[in-house]
Amino acid sequence: MAGNEIEKLIKIIAKLPSLGTRSSRRIVLQLLKKRESLFLPLIEAMGSVAENIKTCEICGNYDTTSPCSICGSNVREPHLLCVVQDVADLWAMERVSFFKGRYHVLGGVLSALDGIAPEDLNIESLLHRIKNENISEVILALPATVDGQITAHYLVSKLKDCAVKVTTLAQGITMGAELDYMDEGTLQLALNSRKLL
Amino acid sequence: MAGNEIEKLIKIIAKLPSLGTRSSRRIVLQLLKKRESLFLPLIEAMGSVAENIKTCEICGNYDTTSPCSICGSNVREPHLLCVVQDVADLWAMERVSFFKGRYHVLGGVLSALDGIAPEDLNIESLLHRIKNENISEVILALPATVDGQITAHYLVSKLKDCAVKVTTLAQGITMGAELDYMDEGTLQLALNSRKLL
Repeated sequence: MAGNEIEKLIKIIAKLPSLGTRSSRRIVLQLLKKRESLFLPLIEAMGSVAENIKTCEICGNYDTTSPCSICGSNVREPHLLCVVQDVADLWAMERVSFFKGRYHVLGGVLSALDGIAPEDLNIESLLHRIKNENISEVILALPATVDGQITAHYLVSKLKDCAVKVTTLAQGITMGAELDYMDEGTLQLALNSRKLL
Repeated sequence: MAGNEIEKLIKIIAKLPSLGTRSSRRIVLQLLKKRESLFLPLIEAMGSVAENIKTCEICGNYDTTSPCSICGSNVREPHLLCVVQDVADLWAMERVSFFKGRYHVLGGVLSALDGIAPEDLNIESLLHRIKNENISEVILALPATVDGQITAHYLVSKLKDCAVKVTTLAQGITMGAELDYMDEGTLQLALNSRKLL
């Protein structure tokens, strides 16, 4: 096959999420084919991200500054805190541009299977922030999975003694969905949490 | 969302084959999470490939040297030439480690739909090699698609005047396949090209 450098690059790219050896090979060939228009700009953009992006010491977001632009912003509601599993979820919330408070990235959810215990997550710093930043409401925006819900319950029990309102995202029928295509669990949940019109 | 650098990197990665914005975002988050073990090694491997890998001036393969290690090898059969669509197919042939001749990368196949004409492919250099390198057999290892077969026919007509044997890869039932799962075209082809045992 080709030089060792190419083999090595294919192996590294194959480790990235949603990629395997075959797609990695296709990517490397594409990069070599489009050297000027794709490969060199990609290397430059990666270098710039690796050099400039930091983890925010307050919330765990990625940004060029620490504290990040959200934590450092003075137009954000300072007493409203949204707890998310990871930065991907923070970005998802930000794409909606609806939430005007600040975030706290847990760095995962509790999981017996994966051996993730409370001390592996940023829970201590969350409790610390709630006390010191005079937070009035904590919104738990955790995944609607078993592990996510267990984590939410754990956090509720931890926050019982703090004088803080704890809320969670509503669950129910997704927008634009046909009832026929919804799973039974979601239907039952939506029926249980029905709203008066 | 996060800094402009991250946005820019997500956009570039989303252009790679088999990736879109969502998987690109996941990849960037993974890179930022595993900075030391994944991100920095990836940047280094990419830099090394971009710096060291050249296109072989003879066959079109990618390697650290030009002529590439296959063209420069003196254990390879010099009078046997395998014509492939692109470097991916050359690599596929090399993974089998069965073919002992040399290659010629066409850089695509003729396509009326995509507007690819003979002058867009490395056909002139192929004819030149056949004359100057004293080639005795040209194996057309082109895709079994309509465009691939049109290209093969075109090459056969071009090579009519050269004193060279032109062959193509056999078509038929793939190894380990159930007849029941084969498409009709392949079955018909396999029946037509049946062999005496």
